[in-house]
Amino acid sequence: MNFDEAGLIAILASIFGNKNPGVEVGIGDDGAVVVTTERTVITTDMAVEGTHFNTNWSSAFEIGRKVAGANLADVYAMGATPSYLVVALALTGQESIEWITELAQGIAFEASSCGAYVVGGDIARGNCKTISITAIGDVGLPITRSGAQVGDRIYVSSLPGWSRAGLEIIERDLGTDISEYAISQFCAPTLDYETAVGFLKSGAHAMCDISDALIIQGEQLAQVSKVALLIDQQLIALHPEFKTLKELADSLDIDVWQWILAGGEDHVFLATGKDLVGFCIGSVIQGEGLHGVEMKKAPEPWRHFH
Amino acid sequence: MNFDEAGLIAILASIFGNKNPGVEVGIGDDGAVVVTTERTVITTDMAVEGTHFNTNWSSAFEIGRKVAGANLADVYAMGATPSYLVVALALTGQESIEWITELAQGIAFEASSCGAYVVGGDIARGNCKTISITAIGDVGLPITRSGAQVGDRIYVSSLPGWSRAGLEIIERDLGTDISEYAISQFCAPTLDYETAVGFLKSGAHAMCDISDALIIQGEQLAQVSKVALLIDQQLIALHPEFKTLKELADSLDIDVWQWILAGGEDHVFLATGKDLVGFCIGSVIQGEGLHGVEMKKAPEPWRHFH
Repeated sequence: MNFDEAGLIAILASIFGNKNPGVEVGIGDDGAVVVTTERTVITTDMAVEGTHFNTNWSSAFEIGRKVAGANLADVYAMGATPSYLVVALALTGQESIEWITELAQGIAFEASSCGAYVVGGDIARGNCKTISITAIGDVGLPITRSGAQVGDRIYVSSLPGWSRAGLEIIERDLGTDISEYAISQFCAPTLDYETAVGFLKSGAHAMCDISDALIIQGEQLAQVSKVALLIDQQLIALHPEFKTLKELADSLDIDVWQWILAGGEDHVFLATGKDLVGFCIGSVIQGEGLHGVEMKKAPEPWRHFH
Repeated sequence: MNFDEAGLIAILASIFGNKNPGVEVGIGDDGAVVVTTERTVITTDMAVEGTHFNTNWSSAFEIGRKVAGANLADVYAMGATPSYLVVALALTGQESIEWITELAQGIAFEASSCGAYVVGGDIARGNCKTISITAIGDVGLPITRSGAQVGDRIYVSSLPGWSRAGLEIIERDLGTDISEYAISQFCAPTLDYETAVGFLKSGAHAMCDISDALIIQGEQLAQVSKVALLIDQQLIALHPEFKTLKELADSLDIDVWQWILAGGEDHVFLATGKDLVGFCIGSVIQGEGLHGVEMKKAPEPWRHFH
C-alpha cells in the first residue's frame, strides 16, 4: 500500500499524544521542544528486521516494546531517568496500518511504563523494516562503566539467559509450551527498571546494561574501570530462577552457562558497589578482565556486529 | 567483511572525538551525558540507501553531510542551535572501512560547521545502509510553524530547486558539466544556517525547513497558523539565481517552477515576519492554504512517504 504520510502521522500522534507539561511542542513541527534538566543522557539504538526482530516470531506490539526497552535500559544504565523518545521508522510500504499502529502502541506502552513520552519521529521508505529510537533522560550524577572499585561486589538486576533461551526455542521450532516465559523474554523482555533505580539509590559505583552478554559488557566494564571482575558461578547458581533455566537448558542439551554468560538481549542491569539491591554474582578485584567464568565449550563468536 | 564492532567504534570515536566541555560522557558508555539548557529541541531523520541516497551518485562524505544537514536544519528551523548528535547506522557488512570513515567525516564536518558534536551512536547489521540521526539543540523561545500572522511577509533563505535540478541531471545521466552546482546541491546541499539564525534574530513569527517542497511545507505552515500564504512568483523570479536555474530547466525542457515549488531536499528555510533577512517571496493573508502558485502541469504526486 502507499501510505499517506500525513494520515499516518496523525494516527501516530494520537497514540503518542500526551498532555505532559514538559512537552512544549510535540509531534508535527520540525522538531519537538521539551523541558530538560541541566544534565541530559542521550542514547540511540537501531533494530533491523531479520537481524534484531522477526515478524513471524514477534507481534508488532512486542517488537515496539523490545526496541523501546533497549533504549530505555541504556538511559537507566547511566543512572538517569528517561523522559523523551523520538522514533525513526523505515517501512517497506507492505505493512498494514494495524501493524504500524500496534508497533507504536508497543513503543508507547514501554515508554509510559517508565514515565517517558514519544515526542517526535520520522517515517522513511526502505526495503526492510528498521526502527531507530533515541531516548533522552534526566540525570543528576551519572553512573558510568568506569567507576568500579576493588572491593566492590557485583550485582545483576535479574538472571540473564532467558532471552537467549527463548531464541533457541523459537529457532528450533519447539512450540510455545516448553517455556512461554523464555519466549516472552526474547520477544519483549521485561525490563527491571526498578532495580536499576535501586542500584542508583543504593550508591552503585559503576553500572551498565548487559544487552550483548554478561561476558562482553563485564569485560568492557572491567577494562574502563581498570579492575578485574571475579564472577562466582556458584553464587549465580543460587539465583531462584537458576534451577528452572538449567532444567530447560539440560532438556535441550545446552550448557546453561552459555545462555547466562554469553547470551544477550535480556537488558539485565549489572552494577558494582557495596550492599546494593539486586543479586550478587561476584566481586571486583585487582587485575584486568573477567575471571571465574567457565563454560563447557568456548562461547560462540561474540556478535561484534549485529 | 566482518566488522569488529569495537575496532569500528574506536575509529568513529576518534573522528567524532572532541574536547567540548559540555560533553561529560561521550562515545563508549551506555549513553552520552551532555550539559543542556532548560529547553531542548529534539529532531530525528532517517535516510535509507536507494530512497534517500545512492552510493553511485554521492560519495560517503557527501551522504554524511546531507543526512547530518537534514537534522541540523530541523533544529535551526525551530529557532534553536544544534549542540549534539547521535548516529545510528545499519551497515550490510559489504562496506569498506574507508567508506564508513568518510561517512563519519562527512557527518562530523557538517556538525562542526554549526558547532555541534556527535556524542554517541549505534551500529547494526541490515540489508541496506540506513543512517538515522537524532539532533538536539538549545532553544530560548522556539519558532514553530504555527505563528504566522496576517500581514507578515514570507521569506526564504535561498532559492529552492537546485537539489531537484541536480537529481534530474543525475537521473538523465547528463554528465557533471551541465551544472556542477545543481549536482552538488543534490548530493550535499549547502545549508544556510546563518540565515536561519538571522530569521530568529530578526524576529520571525513562524519558521520551517522546506525539505519536502515549498508547496508542501507552505501548506502545512498555513494550516497550523490558520492563515493563507500568498506566494508571488514574480518576486521569486527576481532572485539573483533564478535566471540560471530557469535556463537550466529550459535546456532540459522542464518547467522551472516544478523545481522551485515542488522540488525538495534543499533544506531551504522559510519564515514569516516583518522585515526579516532572506529573500521575500510573498505575504501572509487571511484564509487558508497556498495561493498564487502556478505551474505548467500539476506537480507530480507529492512524495507522501519517502
